[in-house]
Amino acid sequence: MAEPRIRLGMVGGGEGAFIGAVHRIAARLDDRYELVAGALSASPDKAIRSAASIGLGSDRSYPDFRTMAQAEAARTDGIEAVAIVTPNHMHAPVADVFLDAGVHIICDKPLTTTLEEARRLRDKARTSRLIFAVTYNYSGYPLVRHARSMVQGGELGAIRIVQVEYPQDWLAAPLEATGQKQADWRTDPARSGAGGCVGDIGTHAYQLAHFVTGMMPEQILAETTIFVPGRRLDDNVQILLRYGNGARGALWASQVAPGNDNGLRLRIFGEKGGLDWRQEEPNVLNWSPLGEAPRLIRRGTTSMNAAGQRVNRTPPGHPEGYLEAFATIYTEVAAAIVASRTASLADPGLTFPTIEDGFAGVAMVDAVLRSSAAGGVWMPVEL
Amino acid sequence: MAEPRIRLGMVGGGEGAFIGAVHRIAARLDDRYELVAGALSASPDKAIRSAASIGLGSDRSYPDFRTMAQAEAARTDGIEAVAIVTPNHMHAPVADVFLDAGVHIICDKPLTTTLEEARRLRDKARTSRLIFAVTYNYSGYPLVRHARSMVQGGELGAIRIVQVEYPQDWLAAPLEATGQKQADWRTDPARSGAGGCVGDIGTHAYQLAHFVTGMMPEQILAETTIFVPGRRLDDNVQILLRYGNGARGALWASQVAPGNDNGLRLRIFGEKGGLDWRQEEPNVLNWSPLGEAPRLIRRGTTSMNAAGQRVNRTPPGHPEGYLEAFATIYTEVAAAIVASRTASLADPGLTFPTIEDGFAGVAMVDAVLRSSAAGGVWMPVEL
Amino acid sequence: MAEPRIRLGMVGGGEGAFIGAVHRIAARLDDRYELVAGALSASPDKAIRSAASIGLGSDRSYPDFRTMAQAEAARTDGIEAVAIVTPNHMHAPVADVFLDAGVHIICDKPLTTTLEEARRLRDKARTSRLIFAVTYNYSGYPLVRHARSMVQGGELGAIRIVQVEYPQDWLAAPLEATGQKQADWRTDPARSGAGGCVGDIGTHAYQLAHFVTGMMPEQILAETTIFVPGRRLDDNVQILLRYGNGARGALWASQVAPGNDNGLRLRIFGEKGGLDWRQEEPNVLNWSPLGEAPRLIRRGTTSMNAAGQRVNRTPPGHPEGYLEAFATIYTEVAAAIVASRTASLADPGLTFPTIEDGFAGVAMVDAVLRSSAAGGVWMPVEL
Amino acid sequence: MAEPRIRLGMVGGGEGAFIGAVHRIAARLDDRYELVAGALSASPDKAIRSAASIGLGSDRSYPDFRTMAQAEAARTDGIEAVAIVTPNHMHAPVADVFLDAGVHIICDKPLTTTLEEARRLRDKARTSRLIFAVTYNYSGYPLVRHARSMVQGGELGAIRIVQVEYPQDWLAAPLEATGQKQADWRTDPARSGAGGCVGDIGTHAYQLAHFVTGMMPEQILAETTIFVPGRRLDDNVQILLRYGNGARGALWASQVAPGNDNGLRLRIFGEKGGLDWRQEEPNVLNWSPLGEAPRLIRRGTTSMNAAGQRVNRTPPGHPEGYLEAFATIYTEVAAAIVASRTASLADPGLTFPTIEDGFAGVAMVDAVLRSSAAGGVWMPVEL
Repeated sequence: MAEPRIRLGMVGGGEGAFIGAVHRIAARLDDRYELVAGALSASPDKAIRSAASIGLGSDRSYPDFRTMAQAEAARTDGIEAVAIVTPNHMHAPVADVFLDAGVHIICDKPLTTTLEEARRLRDKARTSRLIFAVTYNYSGYPLVRHARSMVQGGELGAIRIVQVEYPQDWLAAPLEATGQKQADWRTDPARSGAGGCVGDIGTHAYQLAHFVTGMMPEQILAETTIFVPGRRLDDNVQILLRYGNGARGALWASQVAPGNDNGLRLRIFGEKGGLDWRQEEPNVLNWSPLGEAPRLIRRGTTSMNAAGQRVNRTPPGHPEGYLEAFATIYTEVAAAIVASRTASLADPGLTFPTIEDGFAGVAMVDAVLRSSAAGGVWMPVEL
Repeated sequence: MAEPRIRLGMVGGGEGAFIGAVHRIAARLDDRYELVAGALSASPDKAIRSAASIGLGSDRSYPDFRTMAQAEAARTDGIEAVAIVTPNHMHAPVADVFLDAGVHIICDKPLTTTLEEARRLRDKARTSRLIFAVTYNYSGYPLVRHARSMVQGGELGAIRIVQVEYPQDWLAAPLEATGQKQADWRTDPARSGAGGCVGDIGTHAYQLAHFVTGMMPEQILAETTIFVPGRRLDDNVQILLRYGNGARGALWASQVAPGNDNGLRLRIFGEKGGLDWRQEEPNVLNWSPLGEAPRLIRRGTTSMNAAGQRVNRTPPGHPEGYLEAFATIYTEVAAAIVASRTASLADPGLTFPTIEDGFAGVAMVDAVLRSSAAGGVWMPVEL
Repeated sequence: MAEPRIRLGMVGGGEGAFIGAVHRIAARLDDRYELVAGALSASPDKAIRSAASIGLGSDRSYPDFRTMAQAEAARTDGIEAVAIVTPNHMHAPVADVFLDAGVHIICDKPLTTTLEEARRLRDKARTSRLIFAVTYNYSGYPLVRHARSMVQGGELGAIRIVQVEYPQDWLAAPLEATGQKQADWRTDPARSGAGGCVGDIGTHAYQLAHFVTGMMPEQILAETTIFVPGRRLDDNVQILLRYGNGARGALWASQVAPGNDNGLRLRIFGEKGGLDWRQEEPNVLNWSPLGEAPRLIRRGTTSMNAAGQRVNRTPPGHPEGYLEAFATIYTEVAAAIVASRTASLADPGLTFPTIEDGFAGVAMVDAVLRSSAAGGVWMPVEL
Repeated sequence: MAEPRIRLGMVGGGEGAFIGAVHRIAARLDDRYELVAGALSASPDKAIRSAASIGLGSDRSYPDFRTMAQAEAARTDGIEAVAIVTPNHMHAPVADVFLDAGVHIICDKPLTTTLEEARRLRDKARTSRLIFAVTYNYSGYPLVRHARSMVQGGELGAIRIVQVEYPQDWLAAPLEATGQKQADWRTDPARSGAGGCVGDIGTHAYQLAHFVTGMMPEQILAETTIFVPGRRLDDNVQILLRYGNGARGALWASQVAPGNDNGLRLRIFGEKGGLDWRQEEPNVLNWSPLGEAPRLIRRGTTSMNAAGQRVNRTPPGHPEGYLEAFATIYTEVAAAIVASRTASLADPGLTFPTIEDGFAGVAMVDAVLRSSAAGGVWMPVEL
């Protein structure tokens, strides 16, 4: 028998939002959720209008998230999980309310806009026994799972070098000056936090490197830059990484690099081989065992290991993309929620990013900003 | 307000099927359908079991498609559309029944296993005023739409050469001998029809070339081959194409070409430029205006024209894939169904493949088999 | 000790010629030749002027090739080999004269403009004991040698499918109307022969497929086309290939395909794997053993086999190109000439193309033109 | 009339050397040099044996470079230029002797093993009126010239970001322990100098970035690492770059990154567009004007600007590679030598790297080592 679908609510993601629609598709794709409630905008009118436009019932379309939390808690068929897809500064207040209401959380990244808030929220979530996922969606790609399994299985030997980069170009001109919604809030310290590019996409790159290698840097050195005149947050960041085991790394993220749409790329080099994966061509992983010809591991083929197969949907050559990887996070959270319902253990294969990843991202942003402010010096990273 | 979702039924697509699950995701992705009924297998037991496993209510889970058509017709909330995802030989019988019941059809390809049946079904559909879509899903990719719009807008000038190919390798060994379900029926003349590779994937390549160029060959010459000993249907086909305007083309499809997963590729050369698109990297289109540097048209960027934007979901660099393109067909059919409900005209931008494409594919297979049987001679194609 | 350099003459290749300069670099690259004499143009004045401009001594700069053959034969330090780099129609007359003079021949392709002439010249060369190389230069690439060795060593199993293509775009507009020298003679039946695109580049593709597979088709079917109005020779050709062992193939060559500079590509599919090589990225060979991840065989690495290493010059990642491959043909001919001097056996590893390849190319063009003229029917190929 | 060839000598480059053979091909390719003298090894026996094997006359085959300088100076047909292709520590002593003898210098990189020596040699060369080229050969690629011309012509606007990387993998295992000649001296501080990877390939990357952008960093911060146990010199280096105009950059060089042969890549991002060039596919340059579709500038096409055309040899699609780029340096030096002979001005289009580039590379290595030794801090770079 099919499992009943999980009752999902959403906060944020109304008219003009990009990521809200992505979360809704992600939730729907594998049919494990039913979106039943929402407070889709900070503006009550817009919240109601947005809810209607996506077919939410008027009785469960709320003007604000506090009302929603209260009303849903009072229903026997209230939401079991909530997706938080607001601008960054609202993640923590919303999460607080729903944690208190006993609702599982699926929160966008970065987790919070300050390290203090991230620490507090993490500690609260740890004691709550609720699931708190953070949508570092790139960790949902099958070949990212394959790579992680290879590294953690020792196929690369000791890791020596981690090169991760995430160039984009959409902010190369002062787009925020045009009122474009995405550019507007993502370059606004009040809504984004003190990190611009580093928080928006640097955290994705950082999480991906950690997700695949299992390694967390002990020290980082960073230089953030604002290239576009008048901009208030960094639009480019260079970070050097020192790992405890002697490995070294570099992370570059940019939103002003013309020719790059969403160029997240991870390269990992160990004693015994190297891996190379690019998010824009996610269906192939380049694996170079030292001294042998590089192999193209193609998603869905028999060359893909069990960790990849586990989250694979389509046969080789039928490309999966961004929405599928995002949906995998949702589907893994669903499995964890089901397991939590019945007090059974969650499948140990579940590997979705949690508030621990969320915290690590905020800690990185904090260290980066301190390093850069100090003139580009080495800083420890809070773990 | 959101449109109510369309009530959808499905015939075929039970346990072990590949394409049924794809259709279900495609229907769900944009939230325009609700799957409410099904006869998911030719085996009644398996049909019931399959329906339960995907959460269909037991009252609308049917042991066979005739029962389903009758019962659904009797309900006020009966299905409005049916997805036919059976092996090829059942497409026509199922379509007949649902056409008679006044249900819109979304049918997998190839349309039928004989030209006579295709002709009859096409004529019936033409008079029915029902929508009859055939899921040539590759025509749903945004950059395929972009390419089509370019060609039809004259940006390439007169078309001279069409090179289309579709190599795979999954049948390079006698997989059908292992009982693998997909290989089993797709190499069985009783269920696939007289065309093997040519029917299964050659038709996709043929439709894509037609979809983008708007041109249909007048004559073709073909050589089908069976390379794997013991196989009963062709696993490789070479086709030469003569168009009425003097253009020339070639189509190669193979299921025995090691190193190819699903290598559909279309190249079109006109007086003024050339296009190159590969299904396995569908988010980029190579456009070479004669005498200028080739351009990489990337999905989602401002370089993509309105025809592409119309069916685009995610920003540049956030790859869309196979399921999204498939979903686009479903979503366009939904729009057409809605338009038909209200007697309004369908949006002229809708370009999903219909039974006319389905017929053309069967006519091509027929001509190919006649040409090849005659030793590789030129044959006219029934239009 | 270093071998003395071979004394080389050249016929053709004067001012404005492309291929003459290429031959001179190729001869020089490995320091096995000294260019000492030449009749570089059909115009005596231009011949003398051209010779001076490249530093040939005035005593060995000849107004015409007959004078040159006679004078050189009279010298004790006369040329040992001659490079024939004239337009096609002059290959045979020049070769005749130098064969008679006992001079080894390095002749450009296609060998001749008629099959009769090719047959006669081949028979004459066979009885001469002189070396007669034909510069199918693409067979000089290290990874082409690697591929050949793999196929002939059985690593692909029985070959099933050969797909070879050679698109260019430089003749997509009527360039010959501008007086451009290359376009002028290559589209002129009097100088090129009856084949245009098929003779100029189709023969390269054909030879490469034969070189790597060792297989020669028994029957071919072709359609040549002239797309550019006013052109006198074909600028596009489609060819289907039937091999004796049941293998099937296709060859497409075009000079009117915008976006293609010199897109020679060879794909070979056998029972056990597939190979894919592209001339424009010649330093990598894609090898896909059936059921395993594709390998990228990179030139110069330990993954390259002995046949490749034998003609390799630079370490991996230091790209070799067109001139190096061309030079390899020259250097292998030099080794054969040295062996012939001392009556010793030539190194069995030498694999440069000879007049046999030259004949096969002309036979192919002949069969193609007969097939196309007959409306696109199967024709046997003279072997 | 052809210019007489320049009389060239060589120091180093005997048996087992890699780069000596490359220089000889480079000198020969365009026929502007005649190699007439050599002291090919520090071992007199080996020097004589090596000279014989490449066909040098025994009267001009010298046991050591001092003897050679003296003897050649005494001849009326003595060498005009000398190629210095020894291990690094001998570059300065040899250059000193030949500068004193009035011979033009073509020296391999890095220029010297210490900054003091580089400064002294540069000052000496500046006063000598002799040509002193340093073979930063990657600056010889046509598309590198194209890129340089674009940047310097303002097509990218103000430069913001420079990302340059140069990964290799040939030293990922302790190859020097096997006695392999290249690994042996390149990991030996006595012969390589204090920089390992940073001196061997980091300097190439640094020079290329400077060559194309015209910008020199004011401060750098570096972390060198030795990953292979027992190795004495760095095999990986990360460098951050601060330019005076506010631009920022990063340079990564590694010899322990499996899967990378010779992966030099340069990306430059300005206000108005971005460039991306990879040495392993040098025949294409990716140019992304902001807000437009990326263009593939292909070597040899009409899309290549005059700076590229100037050093181009073959038509588009006929790949040029490493040896051709190297030869371009030689050929430009030849033109400068000819100009210097006649007291005429050298062609202003000549852009080969000189001792100024050589000095800058040594200064970078010096700053990198100081930065890294100090724990990774910002250091000024001597200009």
